Amino acid sequence: MTTALSQERLQAQITFAMEIDKLKRVIRRNTLIDGSRRENDAEHSWHIGMMAMVMAEHAPPGVDLDRVIAMLLVHDIVEIDAGDTFIYDQRAVERQSALEQAAADRIFGLLPEDQAKRLRALWDEFEERTTPEARFAKALDRLAPIVVNHHNDGGTWALYKVTARQVLEKVQIISEGSPELGAYAVGLVESSVARGHLAP
Amino acid sequence: MTTALSQERLQAQITFAMEIDKLKRVIRRNTLIDGSRRENDAEHSWHIGMMAMVMAEHAPPGVDLDRVIAMLLVHDIVEIDAGDTFIYDQRAVERQSALEQAAADRIFGLLPEDQAKRLRALWDEFEERTTPEARFAKALDRLAPIVVNHHNDGGTWALYKVTARQVLEKVQIISEGSPELGAYAVGLVESSVARGHLAP
Repeated sequence: MTTALSQERLQAQITFAMEIDKLKRVIRRNTLIDGSRRENDAEHSWHIGMMAMVMAEHAPPGVDLDRVIAMLLVHDIVEIDAGDTFIYDQRAVERQSALEQAAADRIFGLLPEDQAKRLRALWDEFEERTTPEARFAKALDRLAPIVVNHHNDGGTWALYKVTARQVLEKVQIISEGSPELGAYAVGLVESSVARGHLAP
Repeated sequence: MTTALSQERLQAQITFAMEIDKLKRVIRRNTLIDGSRRENDAEHSWHIGMMAMVMAEHAPPGVDLDRVIAMLLVHDIVEIDAGDTFIYDQRAVERQSALEQAAADRIFGLLPEDQAKRLRALWDEFEERTTPEARFAKALDRLAPIVVNHHNDGGTWALYKVTARQVLEKVQIISEGSPELGAYAVGLVESSVARGHLAP
């Protein structure tokens, strides 16, 4: 039944939905797999949500896949205000945190309070990586660009002068979420080095 | 533990993940909310997945939200082969079905058989709209472009010579998934007509 409260909540939800459309214009460093252009955060979020759906069996037993997917859909929304950070730029990564906290307050705060809290908690969980769900979600976020770069003869690694040692530091985060996906990523890095597509 | 079977399944899942990257290049008729460019299917799928997450309370009681979200992430993948169909082009809609069935066979068929079946069943469910979950998912798919066009002074409606009567036929599908969202959409259509942004 439609009540005044329900209408008011719906209007806030619509406002939020219109606001997050901006995620389609936040551009990441990595490209689509055909190299035709750089990827945006919205399509990236969809992509790793799908990866979670089909790679769930490589998560530790008992992981709540639905929460992983929800986390992945939400994880980049703060970048609407804070922008995408290049994970190999350590100083930018440190600056980013305060910007992202403020972004989370503003954007999730467009929703009715109970929902704002729930989405904020999901995002905090993803960032803190203290649950198996968050660690698996982060593993997929890290794995995706490695798959693309490996497929594209090194892709953006050469452009940004990234070395295998740096990539392997990020692979550690994959292994913490899924040993199997971590081992797979190590194989991609080694193969890229062997083929001369990634500096050792 | 990593076994040969598990490795083989992972390789199939990675192949599928790389294949569906192409959804980022399937372009829809409607634009981003800022009108800067047309939207692609991947970012659209993310967007309505998020809408499901925050608008769940407007679904009929008992709807399994996680299945709604999974359906929405999967629902356009067949368009990688079959292309996007403009819902106001009735002849194209009829032609589309066989193309989409073949696309589902090919693309979901890249996955291990059990997963191919599961994703195919999700997509079939969405298309057939026989469950409350599918009807709610389809409602969100239909609502999103109406919100954008209403916000953009009629947006692409004028460009494609769409009338309020045609839009209201699509709104019927929204009402079947969520009476409340349907009523909201009717309001947007009436407001667009009243402001001269949509032909009656």
